[in-house]
Amino acid sequence: MTSLKESQKVPISLAAQDLAEALAFAHELANASAKVTLSYFRQPLAVDDKNEAGRFDPVTRADREAEELIRDMIRARFPDDGIIGEEHGEEGPTGQRFWVIDPIDGTRAYIAGLPLWGTLIALNDGVRPILGLIDHPATGERFVGSPDGAFLKCRKLSVRPCAALRDATLSTTDPDLFTPGAEIAAFHQVSEKVKLRRYGYDCYAYAMLAAGFIDIVVEAGLKTFDVQALIPVIEGAGGVITDWQGGPAGGGGQILAAGDRRVHQEALSILSSGATMVA
Amino acid sequence: MTSLKESQKVPISLAAQDLAEALAFAHELANASAKVTLSYFRQPLAVDDKNEAGRFDPVTRADREAEELIRDMIRARFPDDGIIGEEHGEEGPTGQRFWVIDPIDGTRAYIAGLPLWGTLIALNDGVRPILGLIDHPATGERFVGSPDGAFLKCRKLSVRPCAALRDATLSTTDPDLFTPGAEIAAFHQVSEKVKLRRYGYDCYAYAMLAAGFIDIVVEAGLKTFDVQALIPVIEGAGGVITDWQGGPAGGGGQILAAGDRRVHQEALSILSSGATMVA
Repeated sequence: MTSLKESQKVPISLAAQDLAEALAFAHELANASAKVTLSYFRQPLAVDDKNEAGRFDPVTRADREAEELIRDMIRARFPDDGIIGEEHGEEGPTGQRFWVIDPIDGTRAYIAGLPLWGTLIALNDGVRPILGLIDHPATGERFVGSPDGAFLKCRKLSVRPCAALRDATLSTTDPDLFTPGAEIAAFHQVSEKVKLRRYGYDCYAYAMLAAGFIDIVVEAGLKTFDVQALIPVIEGAGGVITDWQGGPAGGGGQILAAGDRRVHQEALSILSSGATMVA
Repeated sequence: MTSLKESQKVPISLAAQDLAEALAFAHELANASAKVTLSYFRQPLAVDDKNEAGRFDPVTRADREAEELIRDMIRARFPDDGIIGEEHGEEGPTGQRFWVIDPIDGTRAYIAGLPLWGTLIALNDGVRPILGLIDHPATGERFVGSPDGAFLKCRKLSVRPCAALRDATLSTTDPDLFTPGAEIAAFHQVSEKVKLRRYGYDCYAYAMLAAGFIDIVVEAGLKTFDVQALIPVIEGAGGVITDWQGGPAGGGGQILAAGDRRVHQEALSILSSGATMVA
């Protein structure tokens, strides 16, 4: 069993003034993105299908337009920063700071008219995500994580204590997203132990973990842009987010987030049996 | 295969003036209930456990207080009406009109801080539900169904066309709620055919079906108070809601709702194999 190493908490490289400027700019990005995404929400729209092998992976016009707008704004304001996004890939310098953006996390919810999709914006200093926004334009809720903590508007967020899985509320977006075999078996082993389980909430579940209403989120198959913005919010609220081996979560893949380290450890001891081997 | 009979559409018994009065009163009930339910939402609270055999069935103080308040208001205004609710059972005269209420449909979502729980209020004229409110206090959305149609605020709701299951978006709250055996097998047969599937939305999914963003909802184990308010909204928007044999949905149990009759028929031809036998 691998455990979370405190040494993974690297000091951030940005001066306080740069951090404040970047945070204000991240809010500008989220505001601009929300105008685009809300203008298409619950409107009839053409859904493309960039799927492989029958997987339905909708990409809406809103997603593309909002990402292009965010990229333009970043290029204009911080031309030296790199950018990683779902629709238009990577661009710009690497090895220094870069933005990771996903205008619509939860496109399936979005096209089904369900309001809990979110816009994810992260700033990575080259080592780790130091700022994260989880914005929910349709409900008017914006969760922010930074070295100063995690916040919903001016309210500081804090995870809640939870001693064991048997007391925990668990969320995962879709049980069908786990790979058959060891991965889904490990998920079920955890899932069967909890008190309450909810499906279907994409990034909203991580925000509720930071706010102290959900104790554990277990997912798999996430991408970098799905997870970078979540990390500062969860860690800012006192929670833990790692992969299924206890390593860094920033690359996506198999993700385990918990509000209480005891629950994180208990789940990790089970999930590691279904963890994808990494070099 | 059983099909929906048009003859099930019984003329309603209320005069237009009585209907308008009842609708205005239903809005008053929803407003009063929302004050109670919102005051406890995302607050720490004690969750009772009235479970049988390990099933976690939370009942919050909000649920009980709101139901008691609604009952008091109905008794004061319409003392001759009956009342059916989750927490306090049935009361009052039967055989004539009665109210069916559930202040918090989606208590699991509610205690996990997720905003898509709803308040269900129905008026049944003794034969069928003629008014239905699906109110979502946390998102500010109230869906209303009556013989005049279905509405969100002043916008008339309408289901969307969908020719076949392969084009459909399906929702169900929790796949674990289907009984092992024929019931869950029938659900999976339908679920595997659809284009897109979403879990976790309780009554919100039915509202989105009425609004034209979801094509089919398949559930089981519902109670009368879970379903009465949904019927006028879905039928008012041009949709179909029955049990898995094509019979009336008002008693709860296995529920199939669809926006397009073609999808309803296609799903019914599959689900009837997993339908619970009724006399």
